[in-house]
Amino acid sequence: MLFETPEAFEKALATLPGPNEVHRLMAARRQDRLTKPPGSLGRLEEIATHLAGWHVDGIPRAKRVKVVVFAGNHGVTAQGVSPYPASVTQQMVQNFQSGGAAINAISSTLGLELQVVPLELDKPTKDIAIAPAMSAAETLAALNAGADVVDDASDILVLGEMGIGNTTIAAALCAASFGGDGKDWAGPGTGHDAEGIARKAAVIDKAVARAGLIDREDQPAAFEIVRQIGGRETAAIAGAILAARHQRLPVILDGYVVTASVAPMFANNPQIIDHCLAGHVSGEPAHETALQKMKIEPLLVLGMRLGEGTGAALAAALVRAAVATHNKMATFEQASVENRPDAE
Amino acid sequence: MLFETPEAFEKALATLPGPNEVHRLMAARRQDRLTKPPGSLGRLEEIATHLAGWHVDGIPRAKRVKVVVFAGNHGVTAQGVSPYPASVTQQMVQNFQSGGAAINAISSTLGLELQVVPLELDKPTKDIAIAPAMSAAETLAALNAGADVVDDASDILVLGEMGIGNTTIAAALCAASFGGDGKDWAGPGTGHDAEGIARKAAVIDKAVARAGLIDREDQPAAFEIVRQIGGRETAAIAGAILAARHQRLPVILDGYVVTASVAPMFANNPQIIDHCLAGHVSGEPAHETALQKMKIEPLLVLGMRLGEGTGAALAAALVRAAVATHNKMATFEQASVENRPDAE
Repeated sequence: MLFETPEAFEKALATLPGPNEVHRLMAARRQDRLTKPPGSLGRLEEIATHLAGWHVDGIPRAKRVKVVVFAGNHGVTAQGVSPYPASVTQQMVQNFQSGGAAINAISSTLGLELQVVPLELDKPTKDIAIAPAMSAAETLAALNAGADVVDDASDILVLGEMGIGNTTIAAALCAASFGGDGKDWAGPGTGHDAEGIARKAAVIDKAVARAGLIDREDQPAAFEIVRQIGGRETAAIAGAILAARHQRLPVILDGYVVTASVAPMFANNPQIIDHCLAGHVSGEPAHETALQKMKIEPLLVLGMRLGEGTGAALAAALVRAAVATHNKMATFEQASVENRPDAE
Repeated sequence: MLFETPEAFEKALATLPGPNEVHRLMAARRQDRLTKPPGSLGRLEEIATHLAGWHVDGIPRAKRVKVVVFAGNHGVTAQGVSPYPASVTQQMVQNFQSGGAAINAISSTLGLELQVVPLELDKPTKDIAIAPAMSAAETLAALNAGADVVDDASDILVLGEMGIGNTTIAAALCAASFGGDGKDWAGPGTGHDAEGIARKAAVIDKAVARAGLIDREDQPAAFEIVRQIGGRETAAIAGAILAARHQRLPVILDGYVVTASVAPMFANNPQIIDHCLAGHVSGEPAHETALQKMKIEPLLVLGMRLGEGTGAALAAALVRAAVATHNKMATFEQASVENRPDAE
């Protein structure tokens, strides 16, 4: 999928394919015939049924899991919103490429494919406190960089990110998309004290006001929010999620930044979230708020707050287990196990 | 390890080796040097540090994960405590052996070794409402059947169970070990309505009173609780956990029945839980209460309530990820990533 214009992006967002309800129903019925009390696999049953609604033949799959980590740099770091220097983004990309980061270790041990996509790291977006983050052409390029990672060789797409300063970008995206002030959406990120968080909140308020994204009568278009206050990696994530939807490719969301990347699209069409699972809720406090706004329940609660796709990659192991039980368990008939003959 | 007498079992419980605190400290220090903000891997860091305290060389391992499912039958099913007939226990064991159960699908997809140990299924324990469940010899045999599965070829032991009626046994073990009434510990199990739960609660109260395990001045010995109101599979789980401790083999507990199997030992020596991780909290309401009594936090909350070791087996994937990040990530020095040079 290629977004040639902002309008093409908005049109793709307005014309989302839905899940196959017949396949969902058939999957739910199969769950009730497997050798276990009905419902006893809890959320694993929900995951399997969810995937059955998206995978074309109604058979959930999770063998080929592709993890994509998008990296970007942000002019807003000039406002002192992160205790780490922006140079760390590039250093961490090299760490990903040489296999030394957390997402490498997790992907390797769980057998997930890992792709790292650095996005013009030597050309940070503009400081959103004082100017639009990107031009329309830059925004399209970032959205398309995301759409490019979607192929039909994967069963599940796991999205992650790296970018010094991007929890500030995430908070601005949430404030513009869901409402609320900077203080509602700013958190410690990679390691801030109360003063640092207050500084972030003020920057977010300034950026959202500058961009004219609040106190309007109309809902700003997703493209406009992304262009004004997004980052290249958050735009790429949005593009990947939208392109995945049109390919019926289920997505596992990672932490606060990935979730916030969906927010501008969600504000315009809440169904955008329907092919996504929330891999985890992170230790960044506003992540839970964002998930609640989108009415999706995280699979894991482990106090992780690293990004890189790490929480979502872990959740992929649960998704695989859900698929394995759904496809491989025997039914009561097959196993000659009595199915509640004593029940009323 | 072989428990030759009840006294030998009690002595093993009274003389538990502790974790290696130097190894724990070294592991925690290593976590702070890895290329991530300190603490950002959340509970994965806690898991890696935990294992480092138990594995002999201080290097956490989770490659070889052995899942053992113990199965037993219970005379208390005569009291109508389960909607399924006792014959389902044997049928499910055959399902395990032919690879059709949930634990087969999960073990296979996650690469875990699976062992199924049926315990005299044609010889149910006595009905605990009216008689001691087992003789001393039978209790020893069951404890030793558990100890037998502990070997030094595993890095992690995952414990599960199957036994129609055994949530009633679990509830009785909890009431006798932690205090409280049958109604505090009885739940729907594999599928009970309110009337069924009330019937279970009454049976539990009757059993605990009959055995003289409550309203005493002294703490009943673990062996006595197990013999009076336990099951063969819950005794085997207790034996496995105690033998694993003396081998310094970390254990992942599964749901309510496995957790309740530790309760009689915990009541006598709360340190018995120190080499254990709680894999998940199940949908059976009293499981959360039991975990709180033991002050251990579950890793997963997925509404599962199947048993078979399924929740703990899923948690093994998280444990593997924790070990992989701990052992394989680069340090800041190795990766030439700046470690907060801007920080105060």
